[in-house]
Parts: sequence; structure tokens; C-alpha cells
Amino acid sequence: MTQPFMFEKPLGMRDTLPAYYQTKRSVADRLESEIGSWGYLPIETPALEYYDTVGRASAILDQQLFKLLDQQGHTLVLRPDMTAPIARVAASSLKEQSFPIRLSYHTNVFRAQQREGGRPAEFEQMGVELVGDSTASADGEVIALMAAALKEAGLEDFQVAVGHIGYVNALLFDVLGDEEPVDNLRRFLYEKNHVGFGQHVKSLGLPKEEENRLLGLLQLRGGAEKLDEADALVHNGEAGRALENLRQIREVLECYGVEQHVTFDFNLVLHMSYYTGVVFEGYGSRLGFPLAGGGRYDELLGKFERPGRATGFGIRLDLLVEALGLTGEKPAQTCILFSREQRSEAVEEARRQRGLGKRVVLQDKAGVENVEQLQSSFSEWIDLNKAAKEDEGR
Amino acid sequence: MTQPFMFEKPLGMRDTLPAYYQTKRSVADRLESEIGSWGYLPIETPALEYYDTVGRASAILDQQLFKLLDQQGHTLVLRPDMTAPIARVAASSLKEQSFPIRLSYHTNVFRAQQREGGRPAEFEQMGVELVGDSTASADGEVIALMAAALKEAGLEDFQVAVGHIGYVNALLFDVLGDEEPVDNLRRFLYEKNHVGFGQHVKSLGLPKEEENRLLGLLQLRGGAEKLDEADALVHNGEAGRALENLRQIREVLECYGVEQHVTFDFNLVLHMSYYTGVVFEGYGSRLGFPLAGGGRYDELLGKFERPGRATGFGIRLDLLVEALGLTGEKPAQTCILFSREQRSEAVEEARRQRGLGKRVVLQDKAGVENVEQLQSSFSEWIDLNKAAKEDEGR
Repeated sequence: MTQPFMFEKPLGMRDTLPAYYQTKRSVADRLESEIGSWGYLPIETPALEYYDTVGRASAILDQQLFKLLDQQGHTLVLRPDMTAPIARVAASSLKEQSFPIRLSYHTNVFRAQQREGGRPAEFEQMGVELVGDSTASADGEVIALMAAALKEAGLEDFQVAVGHIGYVNALLFDVLGDEEPVDNLRRFLYEKNHVGFGQHVKSLGLPKEEENRLLGLLQLRGGAEKLDEADALVHNGEAGRALENLRQIREVLECYGVEQHVTFDFNLVLHMSYYTGVVFEGYGSRLGFPLAGGGRYDELLGKFERPGRATGFGIRLDLLVEALGLTGEKPAQTCILFSREQRSEAVEEARRQRGLGKRVVLQDKAGVENVEQLQSSFSEWIDLNKAAKEDEGR
Repeated sequence: MTQPFMFEKPLGMRDTLPAYYQTKRSVADRLESEIGSWGYLPIETPALEYYDTVGRASAILDQQLFKLLDQQGHTLVLRPDMTAPIARVAASSLKEQSFPIRLSYHTNVFRAQQREGGRPAEFEQMGVELVGDSTASADGEVIALMAAALKEAGLEDFQVAVGHIGYVNALLFDVLGDEEPVDNLRRFLYEKNHVGFGQHVKSLGLPKEEENRLLGLLQLRGGAEKLDEADALVHNGEAGRALENLRQIREVLECYGVEQHVTFDFNLVLHMSYYTGVVFEGYGSRLGFPLAGGGRYDELLGKFERPGRATGFGIRLDLLVEALGLTGEKPAQTCILFSREQRSEAVEEARRQRGLGKRVVLQDKAGVENVEQLQSSFSEWIDLNKAAKEDEGR
């Protein structure tokens, strides 16, 4: 274990410099404005939560949690997502408020990284939770809002892949019968390892027809016609309910006019156990990986002793900025350089220009290391010394 | 060690519900706008830093640090303030940028609390750092900016107490000579225990005249006349430089027209070793404790291997909201209640009203637990069912 250099940061930790900050902030403002206009109210929760409450209830793998001990000997975690904390709030501070409850958040979440690989250990997420509403209208609303927010942020070219964990479970159980083989196979989907899924299916020694039904799942990615193809693969109550749910959600999305952004993907398994119904992910055309996602989680609220069905989404702000192809740009700034005897004049001039909405640095010449270098970082430069000398020279 | 209840949060951790969030956000927006107009550019740094770098360099007591171990065995800390991280950035990512550098931040910082006592362990801070400028113009600028920001946030009735650590040290050393007795006495000032200071002075067995000089320090709180009184208590180079610095800063503050908010307080010792020059604290008339503070720290940058003189301030957002006497207020919201067959109409109406800048919840009647209770939380309520029936009844 070597001593870190003074300028080093922990694994996966990043600084945000002014140019990128500005860009990210303007994207965030647009998302916030859209989410606010849909009646979601922002809340904040602490960075630290008990491991035994929010830590265990969250959808994030244990090895990705940052853990520490408090002075009473409890294990704390740095919030790995906002869904579990919001469930805690809905079940405690907001327990008198009747369902449904619409909440939004904009915060950093934390995921410990095992090794250096460019993945951030802290990232900014914005999202919503619609708690206590089991209708397809609720599912459709959060997908439509995610699409509307991405559009408002400037992302024109994006797709939302929509799947349903109820359908996946119905098909896998129908063919395999038992929890364990279902779990094994579902894990390939969770890891998006479709090749591994196919190989594993073939290794099971199933009758050809059953093998083909499982392999058929991999084909269930595309337009609305996939709903009928899915229907043909498995006929039972759970599958039927899942497909009916998706048909209703599709109807809702048509009302919102976002159906052209939506594809169906029955291979989507975003978590091994967390989600209970529809799941979805948003992709920008420039990125090969999702920048947003969410789904229905009907079991979580019960863990906080206020059972309630819920759905929501989260958007990764760093990935959205990447998908938008934006690079940071510092805001234009004016510098007024003065000497001590011009201070009053300088303060007056700065006040006047700030009043016009400009960003104005007021700089005492005696405090400058290198005037030329400093000047190069400003879009406008006013040297009161030169102005004074020119006046004298007249 | 008992198991926490599911709804419990760690010691000193708080949720921010929508009404308070809205209030706090609007105050923060005003501060940000004022700070931005003075040409300070916002940056962000990670929540986690190495203990051996930022942790040790920060002004916060070791026992107030939240510590954890990373997978490589390094001790990490949750950022206890933003000054040390900004010094790290100024000395690394921004090392090519010539001095002075003006940066701002708006973030949460963390301080572990030993026991339940209403003190937050995580709180929101907004502030600036002016790095690489040793002039009194720089000192005056950050004090004037703090005053302007507080005013912009709506705080009319506030005072900024200004002291100077160079003067305190000069007087204490002049009387006591050695580091250890100076340290002991300075600690009473740091703890704002003026009674204890007086008792300790009397216990030292000093000649009466020397005792009176030390006790005289406690009287050095008030207007500009205190500068002359301070001058009379100690005559040496360090004291002279400190007082000359304060006179210049006062001149700067007069230029900015904020001198009526400023008092001098030579008892201010905000830290045992961190600050090197002027120090200051801002008080609102409703609060008995400071809501903002800062000062000059000329040694910190050197620890990050880019020596540079610097000054800055931080404002505690929670305390500012308290000083403003604001209580949270939820934004006005409209709810459009619909049944399935009215969905298209409902979506259309919501879009129209959102376009007018309203915050509109669109709610499927089938998802509502208790219509009356839900209705009570909205300022406007549109039930498309009733509207439809009234149409039929005509």
C-alpha cells in the first residue's frame, strides 16, 4: 500500500471543472424543468444510510456498496441509488400523504469500483418515483416522461427498449419448472450475455421444442409484432397478464405520441430480483450502452412497512451529456483590471456591468501573477490603467 | 448495538421534503446568481478523498471526519469542507491556469457527530475561493461578495465580524513569549469561551500591566475605533502589518458600500492553525450563531505543491434559510383526473397546461387510493369524469 500523491483522488472519483460543469448544469436544468412540469416534487435524502435498511433494500450489489462504521457500531452505506431512500421517505415522513405520490430527485449516487477502468464510483443521477399506483397509466407515464425529458435535454435520436420481468419469468418457469435453473438462465440475460444464454440452453438437454421456445426468447426484440410472437411462445396466466400490461402501456405511450421511440425487448432483465413488472432502458444513438432506465418494483415499499406498488426511472447525467455530444464551454467573462487609486471607479463599473447580466471579475493589478496569461482567459478585458493613460494623453 | 428500525437514518442525517427543498433551492439560486456575476466559476469535487491528502489538509478536526477504507487499504474521508479539495484542483487540473483563480462551489459537506443534538452531519454549503491573490483587494472582495450574496438572498439585517489572526498571535506572543501558553489561551478564543479566557489570564500570575493587555483583547469588538485601540495594545511588526491590512480591507469595503455591515472582532479565532490573516463570520439578526465565515489561508496551497496565497468564504444554506425566517411552501400544482376512455383528452389537456408553465399531474382514477385526500394536496383539480357527465346532463 503506497502513500497517495497529494493530487490523487480515490478510484473512480472525478473533479468537474467549470466548462463541463456549465454544460452539465444546463442539461440538468432542462431535465428538471420537464420533470417538474409533470408534477413530480423534488426531495433529497442523506448521503449516508444504514446498511440494514436502505443498503439491503437497494437494487445494488453488495460488493458495489461503500461501507463504513458509525460511532455506535452500525454499518452505514453511501447511497447507491435513490429508489430505496425514497421508499423509506414515502413510508415514514410522507406516510400521511395518500397514494399515489410523485417524487423526483437529482443527486449523486455511489458505486464502489474494484479496479481502474474508467467507471465512475460517484455519478449524478436524475429521476422520478411514482409510488402507490399500479395502473398501466403509471407505467406509461414514467416511460413517456423519461422520453420527454431526454427530448427536452436535446436528445432527438434515442430509443427506449421495453421488457417485462413477469413475461420472462413465466416463460422460463413454464419450460424449466424450478427456481434454480430459471435463476441460472436469467443471470445470462441480466449480464446481457445472449451467446452464453444460447449455449446454456443447448447444454440443458431439453426436448427440441422446449429448447426452441427458450431460444425464441432471444428473438423477441423489435416492434409491436413481438407482443404476438411472445404470446405464441407461452400460454399461461402470468405471461398473459404481462402481455396485457404491455399492450396497455403501449396504448398509453401512443397517447403521449412517443411510440416511435419504443421497441420491445423481452431479454431485458435489469436486476436479479428487484423489478416485478415492466422494465425499460433508454439508449442514445451515439452510445452502445443505456443512459437511463427503470421499471416497476411492487415489493420494495413493503420492506419499509408501507406496502405500495411503484414505478420510476433514473437518468445518468454524465452519459446523457456524452450522448448529446456536448463538450464543455466556459461562460464568457469580463475582467476589469485596476490599480489601487482606481478602486472606486472599478467597483462602480463592475456593478454597472453585473447589473447588465454580465459575469465580471474585478482584479487588482497588484494581485496578478501574469497579466497576459490572465487576459487570455477572458472574452472581454478592460484595463483601467490604460484607459486612464489614454485620457491623460489626450 | 440494536438493529435500526427500517425508517431510521444515521445520526445527524436528514431528509429534505418538497416544501423545504423548494425554499432552499430558491435561496441557493439567488446566491449562485450573485456569485456567478462576480466571475467565480463553479466546480465540483468528489465526495470521497484520500485521508492522507485532503483529509489531513482540511481545517476540520480529525474526530469529525467520516472515514472508510477503500479496497486498496487506503483511508478515505467524506469531504469535510471544500477548501482543501479546491486547493488540490488548483494545484493539479488547473495548474496551467495562472493566478489568481476564482472558483465557487455548492455542495454538501460532512461532519461526524458524536451524539444526537440536532447538529447535522451533512449540510449544504455554498462558497468561493480566490486563489493566488495576496492583496487586501482580494480579502475585501470575498467579504463584500459574501455580504452581497446574503443581501441578494433576502437577508437585510446581518453583520460581518472581521478579525485578524496575525494580530491575535502578535499580541499573545508579545505578552507570553512561548508557543505553548499562546496555544492554551488561543484555544479559549477558538471555543468562544471569553469567560474562560479571562479566568485563565488571571491565573497566569502576570504583571498587572501585561494581564491588562491580554484582558484588553476581549474589549476589541466594535467599530473602526477598535483598530486604534488594538494598535495601542501591541507595537510590533506583525501587529502593525495585521492592522495595516485591516485598514486597507476597510477601505475596500467602503468602496463596495458594505461597511455598515462590518464590525471588528479581534477575538475571532476560527481555527487553531488553518487561517493566516483576516478571518470573518456573518451573523443574521435572528440567529445567535454564525451562518457564514471564511478568511485568508496562505499555507494550504503549498501542501499541494503549488504555493499560493488564498482567501474565501462558505455560507451554510440551512442556517441562512433559518435566518431568513422562511418556512417551506410546496409549489402550486394542478391535477387532471381521468378514466381510461378519456386518456387521449387528458394527455392533450396536460400538455396544453404544462405549455403554459403550470405543474400538472395527470392521474388515472384507477390508480387513486383516496380521491378526496389526493384532491386536498392540489391547488387546482380537474376531474374529467365530472366534466363529461355535466356535458351529458346538458
